[in-house]
Amino acid sequence: MKRPERRGRDSKIALRVAPISEEINPIKPGLIGGNYKPLSDSDIKKLYNLALDALSEIGIGLAPKSGINYMTKAGAVLGDDGRLRFSKSLVEDMIALSSKDLTLFGREEKFDMHLSGKRVFFGTAGAAVHVVDVEKKEYRDSTVQDLYHAAQITQELDNIHFFQRVMVARDITNNYEMDLNTLYACCGGTTKHIGTSFSEPHHVKGCMDLLHMIAGGEKQWRARPFVSNSNCFVVPPMKFATESCETMEKCIEGGMPILLLSAGQAGATAPAPIALAIVQAVAECLAGIVYVNSVKPGHPCIFGTWPFVSDLRTGAMSGGSGEQALLTAGCAQMHHFLGLPGGAASGIADSKLPDMQAGWEQGISNTLAGLAGLNLCYESVGMHASLLGFSLESLILGNDILGQVQRCIKGIDVNDDIVNIDVIRSVCIDGPEHYLGHQQTLDLMQKEYIYPDLADRTSPKEWQENNKPDIMKKTIERKKEILTRRNNIPLFDKEIERGIREKFKIYV
Amino acid sequence: MKRPERRGRDSKIALRVAPISEEINPIKPGLIGGNYKPLSDSDIKKLYNLALDALSEIGIGLAPKSGINYMTKAGAVLGDDGRLRFSKSLVEDMIALSSKDLTLFGREEKFDMHLSGKRVFFGTAGAAVHVVDVEKKEYRDSTVQDLYHAAQITQELDNIHFFQRVMVARDITNNYEMDLNTLYACCGGTTKHIGTSFSEPHHVKGCMDLLHMIAGGEKQWRARPFVSNSNCFVVPPMKFATESCETMEKCIEGGMPILLLSAGQAGATAPAPIALAIVQAVAECLAGIVYVNSVKPGHPCIFGTWPFVSDLRTGAMSGGSGEQALLTAGCAQMHHFLGLPGGAASGIADSKLPDMQAGWEQGISNTLAGLAGLNLCYESVGMHASLLGFSLESLILGNDILGQVQRCIKGIDVNDDIVNIDVIRSVCIDGPEHYLGHQQTLDLMQKEYIYPDLADRTSPKEWQENNKPDIMKKTIERKKEILTRRNNIPLFDKEIERGIREKFKIYV
Repeated sequence: MKRPERRGRDSKIALRVAPISEEINPIKPGLIGGNYKPLSDSDIKKLYNLALDALSEIGIGLAPKSGINYMTKAGAVLGDDGRLRFSKSLVEDMIALSSKDLTLFGREEKFDMHLSGKRVFFGTAGAAVHVVDVEKKEYRDSTVQDLYHAAQITQELDNIHFFQRVMVARDITNNYEMDLNTLYACCGGTTKHIGTSFSEPHHVKGCMDLLHMIAGGEKQWRARPFVSNSNCFVVPPMKFATESCETMEKCIEGGMPILLLSAGQAGATAPAPIALAIVQAVAECLAGIVYVNSVKPGHPCIFGTWPFVSDLRTGAMSGGSGEQALLTAGCAQMHHFLGLPGGAASGIADSKLPDMQAGWEQGISNTLAGLAGLNLCYESVGMHASLLGFSLESLILGNDILGQVQRCIKGIDVNDDIVNIDVIRSVCIDGPEHYLGHQQTLDLMQKEYIYPDLADRTSPKEWQENNKPDIMKKTIERKKEILTRRNNIPLFDKEIERGIREKFKIYV
Repeated sequence: MKRPERRGRDSKIALRVAPISEEINPIKPGLIGGNYKPLSDSDIKKLYNLALDALSEIGIGLAPKSGINYMTKAGAVLGDDGRLRFSKSLVEDMIALSSKDLTLFGREEKFDMHLSGKRVFFGTAGAAVHVVDVEKKEYRDSTVQDLYHAAQITQELDNIHFFQRVMVARDITNNYEMDLNTLYACCGGTTKHIGTSFSEPHHVKGCMDLLHMIAGGEKQWRARPFVSNSNCFVVPPMKFATESCETMEKCIEGGMPILLLSAGQAGATAPAPIALAIVQAVAECLAGIVYVNSVKPGHPCIFGTWPFVSDLRTGAMSGGSGEQALLTAGCAQMHHFLGLPGGAASGIADSKLPDMQAGWEQGISNTLAGLAGLNLCYESVGMHASLLGFSLESLILGNDILGQVQRCIKGIDVNDDIVNIDVIRSVCIDGPEHYLGHQQTLDLMQKEYIYPDLADRTSPKEWQENNKPDIMKKTIERKKEILTRRNNIPLFDKEIERGIREKFKIYV
């Protein structure tokens, strides 16, 4: 292929320097996916019916007393074996009651996420116990400061739409203080929607107090709850996580949206067949739907079928596998079928470092999740070593990956204004026989194309002239620059900040 | 999420050590894609009709005299402006005549590729002028020896199904000798299907002589032509490449399958809108179909709509972009609509090195191509700097990427034998409450899951114990090991080898 000459390069660079207006930028939060369908309609129905069978025949064990009360009142049946069983009609009544077209609020309205249909949002999540030091190639214990930094960086990255807690603040040994400081670090770093979890049910009260302060009052909090509770309410296979369920009840009371998270691991705590791991996760989350709606009908919740994958050679987790990507995409289709806002894991790397392996692992599973139209793609950036390590550099580069994935979700525009042969005719018959300077090309430069931030597209010659820039070095510099800048941007009002620090021991 | 204990690890590792039988391996050449559809049925028809309009109204210029003869005899109309125009009925008659359900032969039968419907095969292609020295981080001129090495490595990589010439043998200054040695290096390195191009029409004769010798005679060659001609028969927009067309005619005569390659660049030599770049490529390739079938009806050819992407900031190519992935996936749908075996570019990295950027670039576009059901995914491994550099290490790692992509294409198995709730019931009610040692898990270990070769899935602890293996170092070792082994494996019969070296000047 002959490469066309470069013409009018200066004028194009000038155009590029102008910031892309939000209006014409082809990628926006909440693009509509769904052009990829790994499961057929009949597959989906089959899996749904199997999940219903599992709920009515096998049921879910270990519900707390309070939960048994709520759910048996609603119609669940407690067996002699201590398992709650749910009839098809009960489940379907509760699906009908359940929250749909949910909005997850940001602390700033511009970050609100309207979850409906096949709209796709990308964000973080996880409970990594390490942060990756890419310079030393080391894994060290993660701290609350690391978590704060991750939140600060996320605030600046347009292609990341929410921030669920990514790392455990291991420097805080008291679990209550850890929960509080986790919340503080997340909310202090970003005004995007936050997700977090609580170690114990009785921690919820104090954490709610903190959130009321941040919101400016309980009423304000309840009007726009900007934090959701990532709740592992089941221990797969098919058992309620008793304490987490109690936490969930308290969060419902406090007006906090619930992410009903079923985190089985195919081949270990979930069945090995991908389809059957989906069935179990759907069954478990449907039990969660019954639970939440028997406590409070319509309380906002997210259908978090979140099955992971085992590397069956070792039993270890493999979040970066093709099987993981399929599991997640298949789950998205189940959410659409049920008409419930849903989330799952995508973008996990098994690689320990942000290297080529991490690139394809994060790229492929985010692509499948996005094209399948998963509402909330959790763990989509920064996650390494199958969730054990979080990398700030990878978080930053992940923004480029997600930009590209979102470009793919946006798809191919075939509207008549731009898709007609007039431009081909004029270029070929009358014109310069190329499209470089054509008005349509200039018009579409920012509408049809997106440009990565850190990814390098120079020619080998330019690359050499630029002293062969190393993407990781560039990213480390970007990280430092963002953190320096953001440390001067307070996210809480001074008064609120003082109040919080008086009332709570803040480690950040 | 709690990680399950590791049990029976030794027995599983033992299982793993046993080679995967070809029969149960879930990924095989020619998996059926098509679950991803970026274009709707009406979009596809619209684009097809626009392509027909372009052919009848704008036409294609610069056909060689011989081509004008063939095509006007078939019904094309030569305008006063020198452009050949094609009516809808002519185009559709020629589509009807054109080869379908094509087999591209390997020199070994086990490598034959049966192209039909949405079957997907991955391979190499390109004309890189550099090889990437990943150890020195340098781009140096590519040689015939590099090309030979790439072919040798490809022979060992199961997820790469064909080998089209990837680099220009820049150490051979005589173009005829270069063409001959390119063929020799490719065929000498691998018995998979080969693709190549010829610099001049009059080179075809000698190259055919070489192929007849390799095949054991002209008859044997014609029975199973194992090399196809990658032919840039058009110079987009909408002009025939006069000399390449003459080469094509000679290849048709010699019984060589033709890859009709239209390599426009959206925003430069093709329109900037993705959909319209597809229209132009389809129009150009349809002209190619008319051409080939007016020379010899039914001659094997591949519909090579192969549009690239410009980074419109600079006019430079960006093969690693989301726009490129969409272009390629959209083209695959056009091939399915036409019922013609097709190919396009996927897997190109813009990154100069096999780093994280390269990983996501190669991962995402190969995923879209594969899920869309593209028959022949060219340039799917090893390509860097938007086709200017080829990396042997990236070729090897690309095998892992393509394994993962093919696992995604394979999709989710929902057959009743494995997808029923009996296993959930037995594990939850009677069983150990996990699936780790379950017979189903062991049965599916190799059937439902694939395992990467070089990608690392160890925990941070194991990784540290293993001295933090660097994926690039591991890959360089693998490369040396493969090349050392393969240098002892002659791919030609001694007699044939001697005959070739007597008749031609061989540089390998």
